[in-house]
Amino acid sequence: VVVQLTGIAPVAETERSVTRRICKAIKAQIGAGRFGLGARLPSTRSLAAEWGVSRTTVTAAYEQLIAEGYLETRRGARARVAQSLVRDISTKQRPAPERIAHRLSRYGQRLDAFSLPPTPSGSVNVDFRYGDMSAADFPTLVWKKAVSAALLRRPKRLRYGDPNGSPELRAALQGYLWRARGLRCDAEQIVVVNGSQQGLDLCARLLLDPGDRVFIENPSYNLAQQTFIAAGAELIPLDVDREGMRTDGLRDARLAYVTPSHQFPLGSVLSAGRRQDLLAWAQRSGAYVIEDDYDSEYRFDIGPIPALQTLDRAERVIYLGTVSKTLSPTLRLGYLVVPAALRFAFGKAKRLADRHTPGLEQEALADLLASGAYERHVRRARRRNGSRRAALLSALSDILGDQVTVVGADAGLHVLVWLNQVPRAQEDELIARARAAGLGLHAISPLYAHPVSDGRPDLAGLVMGYASLSEQDIEQGVRGLKLILDHFGPSPCADG
Amino acid sequence: VVVQLTGIAPVAETERSVTRRICKAIKAQIGAGRFGLGARLPSTRSLAAEWGVSRTTVTAAYEQLIAEGYLETRRGARARVAQSLVRDISTKQRPAPERIAHRLSRYGQRLDAFSLPPTPSGSVNVDFRYGDMSAADFPTLVWKKAVSAALLRRPKRLRYGDPNGSPELRAALQGYLWRARGLRCDAEQIVVVNGSQQGLDLCARLLLDPGDRVFIENPSYNLAQQTFIAAGAELIPLDVDREGMRTDGLRDARLAYVTPSHQFPLGSVLSAGRRQDLLAWAQRSGAYVIEDDYDSEYRFDIGPIPALQTLDRAERVIYLGTVSKTLSPTLRLGYLVVPAALRFAFGKAKRLADRHTPGLEQEALADLLASGAYERHVRRARRRNGSRRAALLSALSDILGDQVTVVGADAGLHVLVWLNQVPRAQEDELIARARAAGLGLHAISPLYAHPVSDGRPDLAGLVMGYASLSEQDIEQGVRGLKLILDHFGPSPCADG
Repeated sequence: VVVQLTGIAPVAETERSVTRRICKAIKAQIGAGRFGLGARLPSTRSLAAEWGVSRTTVTAAYEQLIAEGYLETRRGARARVAQSLVRDISTKQRPAPERIAHRLSRYGQRLDAFSLPPTPSGSVNVDFRYGDMSAADFPTLVWKKAVSAALLRRPKRLRYGDPNGSPELRAALQGYLWRARGLRCDAEQIVVVNGSQQGLDLCARLLLDPGDRVFIENPSYNLAQQTFIAAGAELIPLDVDREGMRTDGLRDARLAYVTPSHQFPLGSVLSAGRRQDLLAWAQRSGAYVIEDDYDSEYRFDIGPIPALQTLDRAERVIYLGTVSKTLSPTLRLGYLVVPAALRFAFGKAKRLADRHTPGLEQEALADLLASGAYERHVRRARRRNGSRRAALLSALSDILGDQVTVVGADAGLHVLVWLNQVPRAQEDELIARARAAGLGLHAISPLYAHPVSDGRPDLAGLVMGYASLSEQDIEQGVRGLKLILDHFGPSPCADG
Repeated sequence: VVVQLTGIAPVAETERSVTRRICKAIKAQIGAGRFGLGARLPSTRSLAAEWGVSRTTVTAAYEQLIAEGYLETRRGARARVAQSLVRDISTKQRPAPERIAHRLSRYGQRLDAFSLPPTPSGSVNVDFRYGDMSAADFPTLVWKKAVSAALLRRPKRLRYGDPNGSPELRAALQGYLWRARGLRCDAEQIVVVNGSQQGLDLCARLLLDPGDRVFIENPSYNLAQQTFIAAGAELIPLDVDREGMRTDGLRDARLAYVTPSHQFPLGSVLSAGRRQDLLAWAQRSGAYVIEDDYDSEYRFDIGPIPALQTLDRAERVIYLGTVSKTLSPTLRLGYLVVPAALRFAFGKAKRLADRHTPGLEQEALADLLASGAYERHVRRARRRNGSRRAALLSALSDILGDQVTVVGADAGLHVLVWLNQVPRAQEDELIARARAAGLGLHAISPLYAHPVSDGRPDLAGLVMGYASLSEQDIEQGVRGLKLILDHFGPSPCADG
């Protein structure tokens, strides 16, 4: 049977080459059943005449279809529809979307409980969102120079890098961690990761099985909680007071996640006694402690608190650092310091996760660390954020007075503000009203893994980040908060 | 008890401030047991005199130690050693390293079977390692300009980006995939990942539970195999012939991983009939198909093979692309096209994996795609690699003749070379001899998940990548291979 290629449907303009159009037409004919299995195709001569193209073009189309398995040919014979083409899929009914079953792994199912953050809307004038940084603070020229230098000194060949991180960056980080944090380690213990989130995720994958227990501070960083929940772990929240996480509740578990230098979000420092308790517990029970040192560069009135890792004698602490608070959250650069015995496991997990952290970023950061530019930048960023902090603290005090109680202001890039006249039950309403007025406020409640905590007053609380705001914005934001708060006065009688 | 701070051990030069040195000294004294719990510290006046510093300095040290929880103080009273400091950890015996137990998750234990790649040694003159790219082919100036532009047009604030990828890059990729691969999708279906490895890893996490079955091609990409094994899956290898993976062995499973446009490493194209079989199987069994389209930009004699995804009517195919073969493997940029119903699950998993892919890289790639510079670059890279391929094919033919059989040369950046006179058992020895002679060769055997395959000849085979080599290097490398092969002749009688 020779089938005529007449009545071909109009071809979309986006089809770029005639060859491609011929291929598409033949596939459509096969799909519509005009060519049966084994049917001979037109000769290249007749098809060329029909399309008004050269035979070479038609031959190219046939070769393409042979390569794709639609046609087959025997020496000297005309091309035929491949016998292996059992059924027509191009005309098959597409199942109705609701009938399509999508089944996820248990890991995927556990993610269902989480929501993605809403796309930031442009209507917010002042946003105290924690984690945002001012683009003006980023050392643009220094970074641009470092990236350009890295691009120009490229080796002859580009190949996958060391999964644990580039040797240059790890050596530079080793020196930095010793200078800035008193932390002694071998460069081999350092694993370069895509921001602290990847560090947490690698820890969860390597250390936790479903059902394992993990101690966390209550309240604590919500993505850390999600990471452990996604791993199938059982979270056990421990209350936080002025000495940091209460360690008297520690019992058998696989992991504890702590922010000992500056508890997130409450701001307390884990006391020396509790550090001892925590490390002794970890050693006794064979558990690990993740020390998230997320903002230790910013400590304003006292010196830096030594890392918990420096007290660890039993290879129990995994130290987690980031440049998200010093350079930019969008760079996605962080590092782990892991017990030497675990470095290969982390390297293998990192390799399967994404081979390695992007090369140019690693080189640029290594450059900044080696030249001292990073520490100069950190000192400048600390001064700038010190001014923002001062502006926020004095605005809170001057404008809001005893309407608020401010805690955790010694360090970091946020303060915690309890609203003395707003009960916790009205937190959501307050946030919504503020947003309607163009003011971005962020509640503490979502950070509590367990709603009941001894230390928590029955008040609405705000995590107020200030690193992305100017002093003017900060004052304007606090004035906006004042307006909102005046709707939440102690009693309606106070009105008028 | 007032304890004298005499006999303080010499302080290392690296201690930077006097405050820090005083803190360290006091901690050491507490650690050594010279201060009991509750012991009063020297007055600031006497300690200042002893150190020859101002009282302010000593006060700062005491405040630091109070903040860290080593000391406590009551209004007006002298500082004391904190009562909560129950035990001295600084003098605690460090357990002998061999006595420290490190227990990994089952995921971590499964990684034990894998080895990390050896650090590349500098002694190799010509290396045919697949995956390496020539740095000279990288569009350095274009990339530098795009990164600089992205740095300079930064918004006012730096904040975490969309976990699924920047809207600009996803829109640009959508257009590119339609132009280059005939692939129609919504931008919302695209997930930007850190190279195809992260795409594979996210698929494994979201779709596989331990014990699930996964079909793979035999042979196939070894890191894909490792990713599924690490997820606890049972791998079922299917033989590959000239029509790609044999689909007659498909039965109930959760996933199939295929390279339909250019089977890695054998080079065949999955035929149209088998594409139908594969998609029908996936629809029938509710399984997913990962289409790894790792090198479709490089197809030399025929046009590009349409993506399997274009035939999918039942939301079964997850398409995986990368710029590792067009720009650089060290950038770590890739993308998934996932069924619309799965986009939130992938977004949540990506967010927990590392928040999002680095921002500057995403912006730069979006720029290159939008301006047409990416496709111009790909055309240039295709020409350059076409010349390398021609050099390799003619060197193999001219120098080695019937000592080798070359397959899979239509496309991609590698060819597969069977060594007709070297039995498979001698593959390792050949590789080792070549390496000793400064020639990097890479065997096919590690890519076989199952050593028995109908299609595999009982010969040593080499995966020869050429994208990082000059034509001269390629010829020199093949001459080197000739020298090695002459030691593996058909019989010793053939010698001299």
